[in-house]
Amino acid sequence: MFEKVLERVNKNSPLLHCITNYVTVNDCANIILACGASPIMADDISEVEEITSICNALVINIGTLNERTVSAMVKAGMKANKLGHPVILDPVGAGASKLRTETISRLINKVKFSVIRGNISEIKTVYQGSGTTKGVDADIKDIVNEDNISGVITFAKSLSERTGAVIVITGAIDIVTDCNNSYLIRNGHPMMAKITGSGCMLTTVIGSFCGANSDNILDATAAAVCAMGICGELAYEKLAKSDGGTSTYRSYIIDFMSKMDAKVLNGGIKIESR
Amino acid sequence: MFEKVLERVNKNSPLLHCITNYVTVNDCANIILACGASPIMADDISEVEEITSICNALVINIGTLNERTVSAMVKAGMKANKLGHPVILDPVGAGASKLRTETISRLINKVKFSVIRGNISEIKTVYQGSGTTKGVDADIKDIVNEDNISGVITFAKSLSERTGAVIVITGAIDIVTDCNNSYLIRNGHPMMAKITGSGCMLTTVIGSFCGANSDNILDATAAAVCAMGICGELAYEKLAKSDGGTSTYRSYIIDFMSKMDAKVLNGGIKIESR
Amino acid sequence: MFEKVLERVNKNSPLLHCITNYVTVNDCANIILACGASPIMADDISEVEEITSICNALVINIGTLNERTVSAMVKAGMKANKLGHPVILDPVGAGASKLRTETISRLINKVKFSVIRGNISEIKTVYQGSGTTKGVDADIKDIVNEDNISGVITFAKSLSERTGAVIVITGAIDIVTDCNNSYLIRNGHPMMAKITGSGCMLTTVIGSFCGANSDNILDATAAAVCAMGICGELAYEKLAKSDGGTSTYRSYIIDFMSKMDAKVLNGGIKIESR
Repeated sequence: MFEKVLERVNKNSPLLHCITNYVTVNDCANIILACGASPIMADDISEVEEITSICNALVINIGTLNERTVSAMVKAGMKANKLGHPVILDPVGAGASKLRTETISRLINKVKFSVIRGNISEIKTVYQGSGTTKGVDADIKDIVNEDNISGVITFAKSLSERTGAVIVITGAIDIVTDCNNSYLIRNGHPMMAKITGSGCMLTTVIGSFCGANSDNILDATAAAVCAMGICGELAYEKLAKSDGGTSTYRSYIIDFMSKMDAKVLNGGIKIESR
Repeated sequence: MFEKVLERVNKNSPLLHCITNYVTVNDCANIILACGASPIMADDISEVEEITSICNALVINIGTLNERTVSAMVKAGMKANKLGHPVILDPVGAGASKLRTETISRLINKVKFSVIRGNISEIKTVYQGSGTTKGVDADIKDIVNEDNISGVITFAKSLSERTGAVIVITGAIDIVTDCNNSYLIRNGHPMMAKITGSGCMLTTVIGSFCGANSDNILDATAAAVCAMGICGELAYEKLAKSDGGTSTYRSYIIDFMSKMDAKVLNGGIKIESR
Repeated sequence: MFEKVLERVNKNSPLLHCITNYVTVNDCANIILACGASPIMADDISEVEEITSICNALVINIGTLNERTVSAMVKAGMKANKLGHPVILDPVGAGASKLRTETISRLINKVKFSVIRGNISEIKTVYQGSGTTKGVDADIKDIVNEDNISGVITFAKSLSERTGAVIVITGAIDIVTDCNNSYLIRNGHPMMAKITGSGCMLTTVIGSFCGANSDNILDATAAAVCAMGICGELAYEKLAKSDGGTSTYRSYIIDFMSKMDAKVLNGGIKIESR
């Protein structure tokens, strides 16, 4: 169903400006290339406006934020807004410190985001302006399941309404919603939580897809979530046939993204409109 | 012999705060997850106290230190001390510059470490307050062997007495000692020196194990050293059957850590009490 | 033809000081070890002179530059010049922002480089002091082919004359030239452009080879370019027999570098003197 989204990524090969953490930055750059886009990482305040100007979209990830880079994030975000570029936010560890929670508020006040993607605890913190994130993972009491999912969708829709962003809550079931339409996506594999960066990487795939599909952010985002989840599944299948572990698994995920096409995507997609 | 150590890591899934270098940080995050713990990297001085408060242990690695991060290391270390969390030091390249050697002195004066792990040249620098480290590798004239090992243990014990930390000297033979009891560990493989980060990764595995075993730092540390060494051996065996090189080897080490259990550990352990 | 270059790398195991970007730094450290040298990454201005003093060569890569690290680059470069160490420049993204273009000018004014390596757009920017780089990739209108290559060599020679550096322009055909002698190298594979860091890694292999062959920079550089290209080819051959993707490909490149020797190099080399 997302043939056109993929087609435009491959045709336009969007350039993606990332201000991101130094933990998963290499994996992010590689998966951006793997999915058909091209990355440039630049975080000095004196160049971020120029860099974002030559790009098609901007990803802001606060994973290893500091005072210097937060200012650069705000400046780059405002410039991208002026240019009409999609801006994607990954609020890593929102709720784990005052700095993170306040940075999110500052960013959301200054920058209009096209997409905000996090786990349920991070997104709750974005919503409430405070939170109880356990480090960079979701709090157990927040976990989304079939029983509470309607409530979570309602909450995500209201955050979308307030921010104007497509909201993505990833977990066992992924939610992608704007203020009107929602997708539930059941792709992915639990082993993705055993490697660092599966969330960060997804955010950059979303950025890549949105960079080439800025007129259809909801579908571009949903396609990226499905593609990443399918890669997690295919990587697990391949791993199960060998005797590898988590590092090989990480590598396989990026491998499968580099071979993703409409046929694989449509063959594996588990999506439901709500 | 370390079943209980492993069991508690798996049961408690400790959260580990790392202030570490940007060279090996991704491998560190992945091996922390692989060994059953969970990482959070955060180095901004305004958040490190809060971040360390939600964690179970702190790892400080000076590999790519700068003025900004050194202050954060001191602050985080003092907070972790107040909370009674294990704090682990990796004095990467101590002796290679005045900044590194002085930072080590500053850290040791302000922070009580539970474990200090380095190669022989780094640990000598920690002891003497000066050194001749060849970059980040051990000086050849310092190499530990069967002939000089008694002297090295005596020296390590006296550093333990002075600092209160378990001292770990890694090399062909690994030494783990407090001021009373010592372990010699003969696990590992020379090829581990051909990848970056085997030392840094070990330090974070020690941090993970100590985070779940803060009442038994010596055994938690020895278990981590054995586990890492066994992964190096298993990875080499697997590599020898294929035609891979150092990058595949690195990946296999993390893979085997993600599959480590009491059976593998006990089957491979080469440890001697002294 | 480059047996002696390789022999000296293996015999001397040069220590390489890198001030480099945080995107590809881990791959750089691993390929430095793989090719027989040893890396130390250090970017704090208060230690870079000491660190460079214990090393055999210095690599400066501006991929994620900021005000703090640019000052460290200048200081380290000037010190390395005083010591007679080879200094290698990788002008990542030169032309993509005023900061990058001006930093290049500042570096070239203050530091004498032994080698400058970039894609054609980056090297044009170095030459002109302005440019139109598309992020970190070459601009399509700049692409070097058999028709325009004579002109590109002439331009590269004149940049070499002005700077005193060996100039390396990498692309489908690689050019290595000083003001008198040129090599054209046709090793490599297009898939190298689908991973991040193939350029950065090559620059550090050049630095490693030059660190052990400071009396023959042109040949050391050409040997490094050939070696990297051959690794790209061998990795592709191996990948084609399996069903891997870009992440596995990246790993194979480093693997093959760790197994590079005179026989493999001479068997695969595609070089032409001009």
